[in-house]
Amino acid sequence: MAKKFAELQAGMAPESRAEAQQLFQQHLKEMPLHELRKAQQLSQESLAKALNINQAAVSKMERRTDMYISTLRNYIRAMGGELEIIATFPDGQVKIDNFAY
Amino acid sequence: MAKKFAELQAGMAPESRAEAQQLFQQHLKEMPLHELRKAQQLSQESLAKALNINQAAVSKMERRTDMYISTLRNYIRAMGGELEIIATFPDGQVKIDNFAY
Repeated sequence: MAKKFAELQAGMAPESRAEAQQLFQQHLKEMPLHELRKAQQLSQESLAKALNINQAAVSKMERRTDMYISTLRNYIRAMGGELEIIATFPDGQVKIDNFAY
Repeated sequence: MAKKFAELQAGMAPESRAEAQQLFQQHLKEMPLHELRKAQQLSQESLAKALNINQAAVSKMERRTDMYISTLRNYIRAMGGELEIIATFPDGQVKIDNFAY
């Protein structure tokens, strides 16, 4: 299946590929951090432990509407994930790789 | 073509879908902010104007390895793009929607 997908992509005109990218993104589930944590069956306490902070700090973090990219990356890593920063343009998408990994 | 892609996705088992997501991400171009700006044929000066800051501040921003999500979003918007924050897990991807839009 994976191969078929790659072949499909390879055979696409650039415009179709951009369209597919948009479509693909639209299919992604969207959720806030606290829901993502619950989906991973993790408590604020266990995440606090992994991040070496206290539970109140995790709670506060989950209510923020802005934060440093490094803070968000640490939070997502503590859940076992990886953060990706994508810039979407009408003609396609680019992954931004400026930030410390 | 777009419809075919959607149909392909709809018919996928969850594991194949996750695999396709990973593959898809691997196909994304990766670049730092200053290269993305150049690819959009924008100068630091024009971006500075759009952001209501000076050229030196844009130059400094492009050399940072960490910044606020809102700062990055403003930079990408000034280029005509949209920022997306994705968390990638072994079993799939989620778009994080905590941050002010």
